[in-house]
Amino acid sequence: MCSEKATSKFKQLRRSYGFDEVAIVPGDVTINPDQTNVDFHIGDFTFTFPIIASDMDSVTDVNMVVKMGKLGGLAVLNLDGVQARYENPDEVLEKIARASDDEVTALLQKIYQEPAKENLVGDRVQAIKKTGAICAISLIPASTKRLAPVAEEAGADILAVKSTVTSARHISKSYRGLIFSELCEQIKMPIVVGNCVSYSACLELMRTGIAGVLVGVGPGAACTSREVLGLGVPQITATIDCAAARDEYHRETGKYIPIITDGGFHKGGDVCKAFAAGADAVMLGSNFARTREAPGRGYHWGMSHPHPALPRGTRIKVGTTTTLEKLLFGPTSLTHGTENLVGALRMAMGFCGAANIQEMHQALMVIAPSIITEGKSWQMMQGV
Amino acid sequence: MCSEKATSKFKQLRRSYGFDEVAIVPGDVTINPDQTNVDFHIGDFTFTFPIIASDMDSVTDVNMVVKMGKLGGLAVLNLDGVQARYENPDEVLEKIARASDDEVTALLQKIYQEPAKENLVGDRVQAIKKTGAICAISLIPASTKRLAPVAEEAGADILAVKSTVTSARHISKSYRGLIFSELCEQIKMPIVVGNCVSYSACLELMRTGIAGVLVGVGPGAACTSREVLGLGVPQITATIDCAAARDEYHRETGKYIPIITDGGFHKGGDVCKAFAAGADAVMLGSNFARTREAPGRGYHWGMSHPHPALPRGTRIKVGTTTTLEKLLFGPTSLTHGTENLVGALRMAMGFCGAANIQEMHQALMVIAPSIITEGKSWQMMQGV
Amino acid sequence: MCSEKATSKFKQLRRSYGFDEVAIVPGDVTINPDQTNVDFHIGDFTFTFPIIASDMDSVTDVNMVVKMGKLGGLAVLNLDGVQARYENPDEVLEKIARASDDEVTALLQKIYQEPAKENLVGDRVQAIKKTGAICAISLIPASTKRLAPVAEEAGADILAVKSTVTSARHISKSYRGLIFSELCEQIKMPIVVGNCVSYSACLELMRTGIAGVLVGVGPGAACTSREVLGLGVPQITATIDCAAARDEYHRETGKYIPIITDGGFHKGGDVCKAFAAGADAVMLGSNFARTREAPGRGYHWGMSHPHPALPRGTRIKVGTTTTLEKLLFGPTSLTHGTENLVGALRMAMGFCGAANIQEMHQALMVIAPSIITEGKSWQMMQGV
Amino acid sequence: MCSEKATSKFKQLRRSYGFDEVAIVPGDVTINPDQTNVDFHIGDFTFTFPIIASDMDSVTDVNMVVKMGKLGGLAVLNLDGVQARYENPDEVLEKIARASDDEVTALLQKIYQEPAKENLVGDRVQAIKKTGAICAISLIPASTKRLAPVAEEAGADILAVKSTVTSARHISKSYRGLIFSELCEQIKMPIVVGNCVSYSACLELMRTGIAGVLVGVGPGAACTSREVLGLGVPQITATIDCAAARDEYHRETGKYIPIITDGGFHKGGDVCKAFAAGADAVMLGSNFARTREAPGRGYHWGMSHPHPALPRGTRIKVGTTTTLEKLLFGPTSLTHGTENLVGALRMAMGFCGAANIQEMHQALMVIAPSIITEGKSWQMMQGV
Repeated sequence: MCSEKATSKFKQLRRSYGFDEVAIVPGDVTINPDQTNVDFHIGDFTFTFPIIASDMDSVTDVNMVVKMGKLGGLAVLNLDGVQARYENPDEVLEKIARASDDEVTALLQKIYQEPAKENLVGDRVQAIKKTGAICAISLIPASTKRLAPVAEEAGADILAVKSTVTSARHISKSYRGLIFSELCEQIKMPIVVGNCVSYSACLELMRTGIAGVLVGVGPGAACTSREVLGLGVPQITATIDCAAARDEYHRETGKYIPIITDGGFHKGGDVCKAFAAGADAVMLGSNFARTREAPGRGYHWGMSHPHPALPRGTRIKVGTTTTLEKLLFGPTSLTHGTENLVGALRMAMGFCGAANIQEMHQALMVIAPSIITEGKSWQMMQGV
Repeated sequence: MCSEKATSKFKQLRRSYGFDEVAIVPGDVTINPDQTNVDFHIGDFTFTFPIIASDMDSVTDVNMVVKMGKLGGLAVLNLDGVQARYENPDEVLEKIARASDDEVTALLQKIYQEPAKENLVGDRVQAIKKTGAICAISLIPASTKRLAPVAEEAGADILAVKSTVTSARHISKSYRGLIFSELCEQIKMPIVVGNCVSYSACLELMRTGIAGVLVGVGPGAACTSREVLGLGVPQITATIDCAAARDEYHRETGKYIPIITDGGFHKGGDVCKAFAAGADAVMLGSNFARTREAPGRGYHWGMSHPHPALPRGTRIKVGTTTTLEKLLFGPTSLTHGTENLVGALRMAMGFCGAANIQEMHQALMVIAPSIITEGKSWQMMQGV
Repeated sequence: MCSEKATSKFKQLRRSYGFDEVAIVPGDVTINPDQTNVDFHIGDFTFTFPIIASDMDSVTDVNMVVKMGKLGGLAVLNLDGVQARYENPDEVLEKIARASDDEVTALLQKIYQEPAKENLVGDRVQAIKKTGAICAISLIPASTKRLAPVAEEAGADILAVKSTVTSARHISKSYRGLIFSELCEQIKMPIVVGNCVSYSACLELMRTGIAGVLVGVGPGAACTSREVLGLGVPQITATIDCAAARDEYHRETGKYIPIITDGGFHKGGDVCKAFAAGADAVMLGSNFARTREAPGRGYHWGMSHPHPALPRGTRIKVGTTTTLEKLLFGPTSLTHGTENLVGALRMAMGFCGAANIQEMHQALMVIAPSIITEGKSWQMMQGV
Repeated sequence: MCSEKATSKFKQLRRSYGFDEVAIVPGDVTINPDQTNVDFHIGDFTFTFPIIASDMDSVTDVNMVVKMGKLGGLAVLNLDGVQARYENPDEVLEKIARASDDEVTALLQKIYQEPAKENLVGDRVQAIKKTGAICAISLIPASTKRLAPVAEEAGADILAVKSTVTSARHISKSYRGLIFSELCEQIKMPIVVGNCVSYSACLELMRTGIAGVLVGVGPGAACTSREVLGLGVPQITATIDCAAARDEYHRETGKYIPIITDGGFHKGGDVCKAFAAGADAVMLGSNFARTREAPGRGYHWGMSHPHPALPRGTRIKVGTTTTLEKLLFGPTSLTHGTENLVGALRMAMGFCGAANIQEMHQALMVIAPSIITEGKSWQMMQGV
């Protein structure tokens, strides 16, 4: 035995890495960006680009789902949010946008006390389906048994079951925990589950028969779980670990279950790094909240923000600075990676010689903490 | 032999970690927060939550001890502080609150030259005991022989012997060092000793027969020992090391001596991390100083601040921003982890699948320096 | 097998280092600076100092090439830039200098849509050659086949083929990739190729028969490739890796192909570190843009800034603060390493006992992140 | 072979550490501070505390030497500075203090062009000796042969030969290098040499027969060698390495040659850390420049600042904020480690159970980068 770690009497800590700490190494082969394929699959559905709009009330409403669908992509509608709690969600969203910073958390706590309604769940799904778009909806574990069948009956195509941390084994006295293997038998839609951040938790989830895993605890721009609970794993390490679980599950079963890195992205470079770390797709919140098409009116907040006793979030003023198409496909005259994300991904893949997302998983990466490695960060800090 | 470290001719340095550098990894199993047990024991006393109010003059007076007792918790009264030096401590505390930043250190040096008085020690203890509350008091090693018997006779329940660094073996010419094994025979109360930060020092202290160890040198918000003396070990490493000593002592003797991580906490996340690192309880200063119930009048300072020749502290204006109940149990509309600390601990334990504090010790942790890992810190720095 | 890394199921990340993270260790022998030799060779050309002015439109025009030549050095003229696109480049440069920050990227995108013209390529080369200076020009891979013969015919001496990432194997459907081994047969000038950052990519390029390699992806002061694409390797690691490739190629073939570290330099210290890391020469942009002789009029921008769909750069106001001679040879009364770069290199070599550049490659280096290691950075941060 | 490092084809970088990155671990035994012995020896001279005033023109003149001597300590007079160049140095110091930031470097360059004069060397030494104080003087290598005999004849007791980097082997065409083994035979005073930062360079110097080594390249508050030349090793690592050389030399020969860590100190904590790292004494500049007794008039600058072609320094306004006695012995009401440095050292030794400096060398240290480890730094950064 070489290292003393294995037998140490002291608790061991493993180093983890976030987006700002790593960089992608260009390849020995390069390829023209227009020859790259960035398709992404969930179950039998194929999307022509792997950047998903988050199931957050500031990001996705029926309109966003339809518009993303027309572009070939995916937006997930949250049916634990205002869309399923209120007949007229726009009224509520307007109120949130108008609240001052001091009062917004209390307001959110009040707004989200209203329960989700079965008829609204059905209405939202149908409104999407009648446009012909693929309809992906999200629920929290506690409401899944009640509302997932309603959504399925109304025609929903993909179900995401999401909470801050979702495990394959939940212990509760108050209700019988959601058993994903049972759910996968009852519900015919492909089921995406999350969030998780570790190899073992991800592998356990995959073994229940689900169709995708969401990766990320605590990284989002509007999330304060790390401050409040001390909980979270930076996204590069979380993605690397869950990608290893996916590959292990694939070796064991021959099934390829995609992982979706969810949250914490600031720039196109972060998106590219997630794919190099092993992501099959990424889910973005604040970036989409900035588009003219988003329902947030220039504001962004997270779904753990309204917790009645222990809110974990901040409402961020992101502004309405771009359009959905510019965000995804450009062209742009902005030079810091906030627009043309799909173009950035294709160009990075080109410099890495990756013809598709799975080849991009093979790109080399280095640890290069931007705050330490290059003078640029330092200069920025000094306003130079 | 694999590593050249063991035989190196160069002095070896070991990497240590503080709260801001680590994060807790969610578990493969999760549990409902309301099913967690957060009891904490010293000797035969049981407290229903493991967050202790510090024995600092800005934090704990008789009133704080009584109120914490009613909530099921513990506050420790410092009998080397103003409460045992002055008949009317409130007058003195008022003076400190009114002093300007420039004059406060000199004022504290003067105020703390007044010796602690035996009759006041008795009075304070009796004032607590007549309410039925558990009475824990703290003394410095040099005054323990004189004042501990007085406090015990007056009815005190728990004795803490505290200084910046307390070892089982102290060399002095001017007085015969305090021998903890002798003290444990003379004094019948459970004795908690500190502070210490290393495996060997903690283990030596436990072997003297004491009932608890305080962990932490230099981390407190109001402490400047690291600047002045270069001394200190960050709290995650100190807690991990002392937890290993506790577990070793438990293996050797079957006795479980709790360790209490003392100081350096800013947010609920820090509290959760201390437990994941191995703490049985935590002792907080500045957080309690912010409550309406604290005697500090919105100010906070440390007990090594008044040293006559080499003061090591700063008086911090913390404000009076919350109440004892909100701080501990919420509910809250604040989203950065400064209120509902017990709720935060229970929720973190739930996400880690830990039904009690000892199970929380098993939670995995990663090294994830917040200043480096995530864009959020960076943004904060730029006021974004 | 000692380490678990080799067989890990998790993607491995290698730590990399930038200028601000390392320092040079003085030698056991010292030498007088005036006894050092800092010659640098490309093919059969010798330059008396190894600091090259970058092929950027803000840095090098015909005039700069001629003046650097007179001083014994090298400046590279970009024939994919305004000099070969416009009859009267000064008019265009003036427009760029006058544009506001908000409009400059769109303006650059428009200006660089104008194609490079064969007659202008010839004119610029002849203007240089008639002064007797060595003429080095740069082209992008896509225009090399068309314009390199023109430049050669007009008398050019050295050809640089440059893009963000250049590999020996490029996959493209739209045009037949540039094959460097073929190019080296067609073109008689020594060919310098880049940029690359890794051992294997550098070694492959050398094996095509080229005469030099440019090292660096993403480090330049005016480049945002890392933000936009997540791509880049810090310069110390990139230089160390490519130097290892050069040494390996030298062992294999007996041929010594110089590597030129290109971009990311702020101060003389950075220049010295690049040589200690293994560089044979360095190429600087913003430092030269600051000279009175530069065409940028106090502004500096990069050649990937004008990309029509995904611009990756910022225009920096650098000011016109020095002269070419002061920058290179001093004397100076500035004390932060922005002038007398050749003098600084000689002095550093003296303290390392290095009589020439290849001996300087043997200097020891330590990792010493300036933001973390020394109080000075910290103080700077606080404006102290 | 366990590690791939030894046979790597890539240049290896070793991690080094500065004051702000480490902390001292308290001991398992503690001792009363008043029982510690902090004596320091050079040759046969004994000083009652190991904190030396630097041979800088802003720090030490004849008056400072005498006053330090009366306190039992040592200040070194620079005979390559204004004291040996000008009949009336106070006039010159006044001019420097009055110069604006913009003009001060040029002024220093001019002032230090005046050569050192043999008669002034004699005068300064005699002025010191007639008070009965121990007289230590410093010279640069190039002037040592000419001026050391003059100083010795005038009665000097200790000679320091200093430059940015001094090695046992210097290669020069213009003058025959100083051979320390020869110098040690010619000059009867104990000779202290520096500066150096590595194990091998320090060991080589010790083998020439000298009486002490100065440790530190680039750390001083007024030094910019790292920015200008990229040169320097952080002081903790430099001290650890040179202490290993001292211990090796002691094993080989039985002779104990003290090492003096020179420069880079901000606070008492830094001083304590240097001793824990292995220093026998420390040499401070800016701290002494702040005393009323210093000749710098509230300003501080380094001896490599006036270099005619490549100045490497900044003049810092330090203010006149304390007295020599308060700086060294307190008592103080300042709480950030800027006064009572000897008291701080004794207290730190007490907490480490070190009865003398050599026992302090055994104290454990941890790596704990203050900017990363503790929230306090972070708060400071935000002005909290």
